[in-house]
Amino acid sequence: MDMRFTDTLNALENLEDGMFGQDFLLTWEKTAAALRQVLLAAEALKDLHRRNRPARCFDSGLAVSIFRDNSTRTRFSFASACDFLGLGLQDLDERRSQIAHGETVRETATMISFLTEVIGIRDDIYMGAGNRFMRQVAAAVTDSHTSGVLHQRPMVINLQCDLDHPTQTLADLLHLKTHFGSLAALRGKKIAMSWAYSPSYGKPLSVPQGIVALMARFGMHVCLAHPPGYQLTEEALAFAQRAARKSGGRFSITDSMADAFADADVVYPKSWAPFAIMEKRTEMLTAGNTGGLAALEKEALDSNARHASWQCTPEMMGLTRGGRALYMHCLPADISGVSCTRGEVEASVFEKYRLDTYRQAAFKPFVIAAMILCSRFRHPARVLETIGEKPFSRCLAP
Amino acid sequence: MDMRFTDTLNALENLEDGMFGQDFLLTWEKTAAALRQVLLAAEALKDLHRRNRPARCFDSGLAVSIFRDNSTRTRFSFASACDFLGLGLQDLDERRSQIAHGETVRETATMISFLTEVIGIRDDIYMGAGNRFMRQVAAAVTDSHTSGVLHQRPMVINLQCDLDHPTQTLADLLHLKTHFGSLAALRGKKIAMSWAYSPSYGKPLSVPQGIVALMARFGMHVCLAHPPGYQLTEEALAFAQRAARKSGGRFSITDSMADAFADADVVYPKSWAPFAIMEKRTEMLTAGNTGGLAALEKEALDSNARHASWQCTPEMMGLTRGGRALYMHCLPADISGVSCTRGEVEASVFEKYRLDTYRQAAFKPFVIAAMILCSRFRHPARVLETIGEKPFSRCLAP
Amino acid sequence: MDMRFTDTLNALENLEDGMFGQDFLLTWEKTAAALRQVLLAAEALKDLHRRNRPARCFDSGLAVSIFRDNSTRTRFSFASACDFLGLGLQDLDERRSQIAHGETVRETATMISFLTEVIGIRDDIYMGAGNRFMRQVAAAVTDSHTSGVLHQRPMVINLQCDLDHPTQTLADLLHLKTHFGSLAALRGKKIAMSWAYSPSYGKPLSVPQGIVALMARFGMHVCLAHPPGYQLTEEALAFAQRAARKSGGRFSITDSMADAFADADVVYPKSWAPFAIMEKRTEMLTAGNTGGLAALEKEALDSNARHASWQCTPEMMGLTRGGRALYMHCLPADISGVSCTRGEVEASVFEKYRLDTYRQAAFKPFVIAAMILCSRFRHPARVLETIGEKPFSRCLAP
Repeated sequence: MDMRFTDTLNALENLEDGMFGQDFLLTWEKTAAALRQVLLAAEALKDLHRRNRPARCFDSGLAVSIFRDNSTRTRFSFASACDFLGLGLQDLDERRSQIAHGETVRETATMISFLTEVIGIRDDIYMGAGNRFMRQVAAAVTDSHTSGVLHQRPMVINLQCDLDHPTQTLADLLHLKTHFGSLAALRGKKIAMSWAYSPSYGKPLSVPQGIVALMARFGMHVCLAHPPGYQLTEEALAFAQRAARKSGGRFSITDSMADAFADADVVYPKSWAPFAIMEKRTEMLTAGNTGGLAALEKEALDSNARHASWQCTPEMMGLTRGGRALYMHCLPADISGVSCTRGEVEASVFEKYRLDTYRQAAFKPFVIAAMILCSRFRHPARVLETIGEKPFSRCLAP
Repeated sequence: MDMRFTDTLNALENLEDGMFGQDFLLTWEKTAAALRQVLLAAEALKDLHRRNRPARCFDSGLAVSIFRDNSTRTRFSFASACDFLGLGLQDLDERRSQIAHGETVRETATMISFLTEVIGIRDDIYMGAGNRFMRQVAAAVTDSHTSGVLHQRPMVINLQCDLDHPTQTLADLLHLKTHFGSLAALRGKKIAMSWAYSPSYGKPLSVPQGIVALMARFGMHVCLAHPPGYQLTEEALAFAQRAARKSGGRFSITDSMADAFADADVVYPKSWAPFAIMEKRTEMLTAGNTGGLAALEKEALDSNARHASWQCTPEMMGLTRGGRALYMHCLPADISGVSCTRGEVEASVFEKYRLDTYRQAAFKPFVIAAMILCSRFRHPARVLETIGEKPFSRCLAP
Repeated sequence: MDMRFTDTLNALENLEDGMFGQDFLLTWEKTAAALRQVLLAAEALKDLHRRNRPARCFDSGLAVSIFRDNSTRTRFSFASACDFLGLGLQDLDERRSQIAHGETVRETATMISFLTEVIGIRDDIYMGAGNRFMRQVAAAVTDSHTSGVLHQRPMVINLQCDLDHPTQTLADLLHLKTHFGSLAALRGKKIAMSWAYSPSYGKPLSVPQGIVALMARFGMHVCLAHPPGYQLTEEALAFAQRAARKSGGRFSITDSMADAFADADVVYPKSWAPFAIMEKRTEMLTAGNTGGLAALEKEALDSNARHASWQCTPEMMGLTRGGRALYMHCLPADISGVSCTRGEVEASVFEKYRLDTYRQAAFKPFVIAAMILCSRFRHPARVLETIGEKPFSRCLAP
């Protein structure tokens, strides 16, 4: 067993247990120990994969995904993670079922869970609805497990909701840890989480919310920048404020992209929709107000268009610390002249950091696998040790 | 190995072989030994799962599903069952293929079967068509296996057709066995299989047909209740009559829900479509008669509406033995004031038995796994014994 | 271990390494050794399956499929092959993702590949586009692997493109090898790859191109027959010409089906679209020229209709060597009086050879598995030997 892997396991073994039997719905509900467990387990699992070691710890069991929005990256990350651990994938395609809201969420959640170990949900479209739906599913499987209907209680993972995108932000954090060498090295580093212009409409707030709430816990100076009207939810802002105070970091808000980029060590320029418009949109969608929705889309696009200068250009990058800040994006980015006429980032900046954004994305499958491992097994370090000692390779190579 | 598991295996070992190499298309084609095999194997498999034991008995192999109608419960039951045994799931999505009826069913059935161990089919919409389609698939794989094209002949499982719903009714029977303590305890118990009002149209007859045909074999008093025009097929009625005579049970038909509920030990109130209308519908669908279909739907809904009093109310439940009959439903139920304004059952009745209906549903994955086990292995008891002795857990817990 | 299996492994062991780390995009890019490796590995894998032996050589890992056209046969062949080797299936459904062409193919290819061992692609609709797309994916994963983003580089398999259909034609070759006893026995045998009439429009040229290019390498007399206007690409014709010269075979072209069938040992009558029309179609589809497309379809169908006599009839079969040529088809065939009024083949001819066409198709899953095995493992013979010695059956039979 190699040295680094052993060190990771030791660190993991010494953490107090924070994830066993738990869901993963919002990072700001999790203890520091729980977050560190997930990060360490993800590193160990990525290390196993790199060394062609197997990680199967389930002989059978389903991993159910519910995607209420299109997805490629997260879908494949979830699929890869579950397959790596030995779980079989089954997607609940709501277009081919008759899933109604309300009373029957409870029933459906149980019906898909008899032999299920994990349920991953993406529901990021309706402000105020996505995370609530996840909690309904979680409550339902708790109820059915407590009453003996389910032999095991599947864990619920938030694969992006209206409030947070924890599998993304923990992958982002792992990318930063790897880039700067340790979590401790993040202390005092400045990260600019900045709104950026996009010609499209309705992007969720989950990534900026998740980033400010998470990075403030690790002593970073989190600088949030956006034009007027694009503020985040009170809940996320208040948490980031408290977290920064507690960690010795800093949380500031500005309406200038340049201010945010000034001397930043990391920049994360990304578009999102105005919160107020997203709330109105949910109401209109619920009410089936088609005319109102069209007017609202126009209003949102007009609003975006007034801030078309919020673009990550070489000049903007020049303002960062030594002109060499790490550029981050959850992908796909709106790249000017490539995927749209004018967007979040200029092509020359994106191309320079393209492989970095791929490396950032590469952590996500292992973060998801780590969440499952730490939730389903009381002693994840011992499971990883057992796996690491298996006398064969993941991919048979005699 | 625990005692109950050993007892189940012994009982299974002593049964004559009735399922090996067989499909499962209709319960009324099966010998009593075959049914008991499936029930015992399902209990053993459920017990293994509850005790976190692995059940993998296929190193590889596909399980193919063909759903010609929407499904959540049965889809996940089939997926769970196959994954539990080690099979990989592959859905044949006919919208993404070019499957025609007639000659080419034969070809398609072979093309999806080269490394396939089981084919599960739901085809419950067209009266007179669903079960026939399953038999065409079954005949095709037999032909291809006999002629040496296929190394193995996949088993075909009816996941609900126009005539029967055997994975549901065997789960129901297992629920009754568990509830009353044994199959012997079912003798003389009265089960009311009653039509109930629904504001929707076109529900298959497969559940009521399957229930009367199956429960009459176990000495129960099966009382079928429905308004005029909602009779079942001659085939099912005749079989239930003969089965009741042979088993010492009783089969009666009434046009009063109250009569059926009187002193019942079990009630199964559920809507279904008038048989004559389903037959006309098939003709019109085949002929593409859109105008006729609209008129027919109105006729069916009007017919239902004349019997809106057929609802499972607390008063109706009060007529049952001691007012405490077991309420059953294959789910989802049309619950008055919850999933519709007025439907099959009042909310207070459903809520009282909600967890019971979940327990009922929980047997289905294991019934399906048992069907596969008993069909693909000549000595299912020995396979289960080998599985039960594996030196590791299903879900690794070192 | 049985004798034939050992012989196959010895032959495989003695071949020079031609497939390790390689994609499979076009047979005419492959060395003879690479082709022979795939054929031998496919035979060994089919033998293992027939003898109920396991073939799992991946403990985990994804197999990603991208189907840009409907498919049943190839989809199930790919699924079966990957499951047989231990890989988990994940389909990239482009309708549920936001995959654009151009720049982002590179990104998407990487995002689906973090734990992926093989990517199978069908893209056969647009002339000049399908194979190019596969190369873009292949270049992207090479780039990401070289730069360390991917721990492993997934192999890319052509599951049918605009130019070739290698999993089909290698299955066809294996069918011929089995039918005639050896590859050597193919020398001098005449195969008629003939256009045939179909009432449908737009069938790809990949099968006839693949057949003439591949069979000419094994010393066969490949006789290509088609009406004027249905010629293949220069690239395929030139390769077949050179290959025939080099192998001591022969490559001839005629505009008479009867000439091609005369004294043929094998006939492969199959419709395809006129190349020029396919090219125009691609242009019009790209330009969104709906009116032009309708006119083009009419032109193509009129063109086909002028050659409705190109049908594989009993009389035509009577022209072949001894009247007993082997009839081949990649399925589904347009069978006169069965799947269409008048098509590629008369029902009596097809029925006579129906099981032969099934046997031909049965090789495809094993060819795909062999491609994966030979690409992902440096010593496929040793992997097969290890697999063949496993102390348990694929399907547990204690």
